[in-house]
Amino acid sequence: MTTVMSITLYGFWRSIASFRVRTALKLKGMSFTEIPIDILTGAQFSPDFDAINTGHAVPALVHDGVTLLQSLPIMEYLDEIAPAHPLLPKAAVDRAYARALALVTVADSHPLMVPRVRKYVGETLKADPAAVDAWARHWTIEGLGTYERLLTRRPPAPFAVGDTPGLADICIAGHMLGAFFFKVDTAPFPIVTGLAARCWARPAFAESHPLRQPGAPKAA
Amino acid sequence: MTTVMSITLYGFWRSIASFRVRTALKLKGMSFTEIPIDILTGAQFSPDFDAINTGHAVPALVHDGVTLLQSLPIMEYLDEIAPAHPLLPKAAVDRAYARALALVTVADSHPLMVPRVRKYVGETLKADPAAVDAWARHWTIEGLGTYERLLTRRPPAPFAVGDTPGLADICIAGHMLGAFFFKVDTAPFPIVTGLAARCWARPAFAESHPLRQPGAPKAA
Repeated sequence: MTTVMSITLYGFWRSIASFRVRTALKLKGMSFTEIPIDILTGAQFSPDFDAINTGHAVPALVHDGVTLLQSLPIMEYLDEIAPAHPLLPKAAVDRAYARALALVTVADSHPLMVPRVRKYVGETLKADPAAVDAWARHWTIEGLGTYERLLTRRPPAPFAVGDTPGLADICIAGHMLGAFFFKVDTAPFPIVTGLAARCWARPAFAESHPLRQPGAPKAA
Repeated sequence: MTTVMSITLYGFWRSIASFRVRTALKLKGMSFTEIPIDILTGAQFSPDFDAINTGHAVPALVHDGVTLLQSLPIMEYLDEIAPAHPLLPKAAVDRAYARALALVTVADSHPLMVPRVRKYVGETLKADPAAVDAWARHWTIEGLGTYERLLTRRPPAPFAVGDTPGLADICIAGHMLGAFFFKVDTAPFPIVTGLAARCWARPAFAESHPLRQPGAPKAA
């Protein structure tokens, strides 16, 4: 009897964190089913989804009955259980560098522009729509600047930590998606854009692009 | 000849991310020197500090000449190079759970209340000081609520993932420091406060408390 590993990803086309996990699964060649949770209409706060992830956010990944939360721990988990196409390098200093690159967006930038935060900025802080957009663009640009400075000191070769895309590249490509959604000019960040272009040339990244997911509009 | 491992932590008394790394080092019994970078006066943006961390944030940790950035990757690094007192459990699903707990504050909550963000909320979004405080309290309470729900489903035993404090506990204790600084009532979150109390009873946590660091005021 063959045991078939069952993986369900609760994600959403527009969710950059879901993009990260989707890309990691595809890089590793792991098959999965994705169930969309519409975070723009607040489906992540529904009782049904609370039963899956009481953190009320996507992505959540269910693997053989166990639910895993947060994109970064999910990617680390996939890397620990599935050795094909490692997402992290072997040396401890390189692993720390890859994780630090990931957190520039996962911690310092992306959490500032998720729907619940933009909603608070608009509704509670009474920022008008242009100011909410400017807020999202500001933190996107801050992240791009940090990436450009870090990658200037340690140039991609050709990916962030070696010759295959991994955790850091996934997160940087996701950050570029934020720049795309919020119409940020990325020309001042040539090293970041070069790295991202090399990512999009890979099927695992291209197929995971938000605009190619079910439910996405024809143009964002 | 004995090789002495040299560890320098660039931190700041008020920095919750620095608290995390300080506690991890102490839990592991690793000696280190801490150099304060005053993030309230913007010292993290100085050219001198840019040479150390062009990410312009604390903590940064220099280990035998190599600079490591971001509190979570630094803690993972310490766990990889120093086996004493593991910060993460062994099983992949438990490691993912511990990391997910960490990211509730490291990604979803704490980045919203660091000085640069409070500054933007006050100066650019023109929120008055009470609204800036309410902003920080709101995201602190959101994080506390998420922790309480998660820890209700998987009760601490007595720490988040087993009988010794690790990565998740460090991050939860740090989140409670945010609640302390922003004067949030933590009574509605008894499981979180119970876990944090068990942390503060440990010397590694108590000695790492912001108010016990050089430069801290007598009362916050």
